[in-house]
Amino acid sequence: MRDSTDADAEITYSPIGIIHSPFPDISGMPIQPAGAHGIRGTVEIFGKYQEGLSDLNGFSRIILIYSFHECSSCELTVIPFLDTKTHGIFATRAPCRPNAIGLSIVRLITMNGCELVVEDVDVLDGTPLLDIKPYVPPFDCYPDEEYGWLSGCENSVVSKRSDMRFFEK
Amino acid sequence: MRDSTDADAEITYSPIGIIHSPFPDISGMPIQPAGAHGIRGTVEIFGKYQEGLSDLNGFSRIILIYSFHECSSCELTVIPFLDTKTHGIFATRAPCRPNAIGLSIVRLITMNGCELVVEDVDVLDGTPLLDIKPYVPPFDCYPDEEYGWLSGCENSVVSKRSDMRFFEK
Repeated sequence: MRDSTDADAEITYSPIGIIHSPFPDISGMPIQPAGAHGIRGTVEIFGKYQEGLSDLNGFSRIILIYSFHECSSCELTVIPFLDTKTHGIFATRAPCRPNAIGLSIVRLITMNGCELVVEDVDVLDGTPLLDIKPYVPPFDCYPDEEYGWLSGCENSVVSKRSDMRFFEK
Repeated sequence: MRDSTDADAEITYSPIGIIHSPFPDISGMPIQPAGAHGIRGTVEIFGKYQEGLSDLNGFSRIILIYSFHECSSCELTVIPFLDTKTHGIFATRAPCRPNAIGLSIVRLITMNGCELVVEDVDVLDGTPLLDIKPYVPPFDCYPDEEYGWLSGCENSVVSKRSDMRFFEK
């Protein structure tokens, strides 16, 4: 068992690009790709990483991993957008996490050089992108899993919009 | 459109815990949870984050986001474990990414205080954990997406094991 890791270690990343979306403001944003159906954005990859995009266009969905860059607070329990009760932050997708890392599974429409056109974008305009991974149904799709407090909330995600609750602390 | 982000910006995270697994060495590891069926590990969350785990036990799968801490090289094109041809790094799940962030969707068996017992673990022992998100089928499961060069490789992921190709540069 390795024990070199501790809570004070620092792991530093740099953006590989920027996500552009129709959402300049947090308030009123969709809160999941399922609530952003057909909403289009672009992912601009910095030129030095372009070679890494080769063959990505064979995938119809991609996983965007990004920084919740506007969220500077960290809360261990939150009342998420989809409920009126408090839950642990790791049982939610809320942005005010110890490490403010976001994940969105978006549709890849086209790729032109360093620009990806994507749909189902639930991301703030100007968001720093950390990684792209291909979405692979045999690896990533588990239809029959239980989903705790979110059971029964899945339909309201379509219409629910963000407010400023995680950003005004 | 915000332009404050550039390729030199630094985003710093600290581990929230450590993933323990039966894999002290990279060589011979499963390369996806689908190739690690039933393999058990534990996720140790640092005490100061315990409150954030509340209600996570209602979810039967969780998304682990972690650092590929043993991978110091970055390659933009790779020959992945599942193919003999070169692909862009962002079209693969290989660890030698510009930002060495890993993602595994594992089964949550039980939770005891700060320790989670998980299964389907394809992660190196001692891996620094960055985030946990609940896996929510209505958000995360897209069974009908195309998956490019990985089409036809999905069965070999069960038996394929890691070698040192991304770690000896």
